[in-house]
Amino acid sequence: MNIVIPLFPRFTVLDAVGPYEVLSRLPGAKVTVAAVEPGLVRDATGMLQLDAPVAVADVKSADVLCVPGGPGTRRPDPRLVDWIRAIHPTTKMTTSVCTGSLLLAAAGVLEGLPATSHWFEIDRLADHGAIPTRRRIVFAGKVATAAGVSAGIDLALALAARLDGEDVARAIQLAIEYDPEPPFDAGSVEKAPPAIVELVRSTIQKRMAAGAPL
Amino acid sequence: MNIVIPLFPRFTVLDAVGPYEVLSRLPGAKVTVAAVEPGLVRDATGMLQLDAPVAVADVKSADVLCVPGGPGTRRPDPRLVDWIRAIHPTTKMTTSVCTGSLLLAAAGVLEGLPATSHWFEIDRLADHGAIPTRRRIVFAGKVATAAGVSAGIDLALALAARLDGEDVARAIQLAIEYDPEPPFDAGSVEKAPPAIVELVRSTIQKRMAAGAPL
Repeated sequence: MNIVIPLFPRFTVLDAVGPYEVLSRLPGAKVTVAAVEPGLVRDATGMLQLDAPVAVADVKSADVLCVPGGPGTRRPDPRLVDWIRAIHPTTKMTTSVCTGSLLLAAAGVLEGLPATSHWFEIDRLADHGAIPTRRRIVFAGKVATAAGVSAGIDLALALAARLDGEDVARAIQLAIEYDPEPPFDAGSVEKAPPAIVELVRSTIQKRMAAGAPL
Repeated sequence: MNIVIPLFPRFTVLDAVGPYEVLSRLPGAKVTVAAVEPGLVRDATGMLQLDAPVAVADVKSADVLCVPGGPGTRRPDPRLVDWIRAIHPTTKMTTSVCTGSLLLAAAGVLEGLPATSHWFEIDRLADHGAIPTRRRIVFAGKVATAAGVSAGIDLALALAARLDGEDVARAIQLAIEYDPEPPFDAGSVEKAPPAIVELVRSTIQKRMAAGAPL
């Protein structure tokens, strides 16, 4: 089971690591972390670097493609988008977390399909012919998209169940003790107080205007 | 706000990245990723490397110390344990995720304090005078410990609220869309079917015997 996670400058690190922590525990999993330019890739917040030792150009196929999001998706590298377009026909599952779905969409993978993304950016999916669908995880045939950042953990567990059965997924959930107890109930635009939604919107907009991370 | 995350070979990457994704978004946050031997540090599953550009020996103080866990805690590097012992008196908050609490315990930080850890290892806390406490997050004065792996996200949000107020914590929760929907309800030993608990226990024991990751 070849799992490929492509990174790019200003990706959101939890988008990649949430699914990694689940999928890397699947029986026989081999995870390849790749980038257009291999080497250290700096995340959105700018204080952490992950190693992507492999060039995407050297990755010709994947069983599972998992594309993270982050502010780096706003002006995507066309080489990355072209690579996603080329590898998608080889996959068993093509997946994204957060605004990674905008990269799938730019590659034409989501044409006519329901898909989700980070709540702040989800409407942009329609620019590429996808059908924005406000759910935490959206499966559409062999394509699966997750909502913002932390939703990648839920997506990966659902994916683990499809790939290796529900008992394997449950075992991984127990191994990572994923029994969430968020101390607040503000994790979606529907649940957060309107003032918090406005605070996050204006913070993101200010940072976008300044070219800074989401 | 200086946040220090020490890495070590065979750490569990989500233990570190869950809190990183939350705490790096705090106003004025500066995150330092450090290691006894700076450079790339390989995670427990062995297929991902994070960069730890700073030597712990060069980190003399921290506002927030956040120690991840992982199989690398079983035979901890005494230099790391000594460093934790030395830096703890400088912190506003000393925290751990998963078996990171075993490193805090080895450093004497948890002497006489209630603390939690990964469910598989929690009893070992008592070896160092801590009081094993089966909760997802345990605060004891300026020390806070989280249960296994994914619990670091919950810990970090609770910590964000203590450091910068509940609205900042809620805003970060919304920014990372942390509205968890695990597809199964198997995230704790109390909730998982007994056969799944046994499967994970035996898998961990086999891997320990083989010297492989948790």
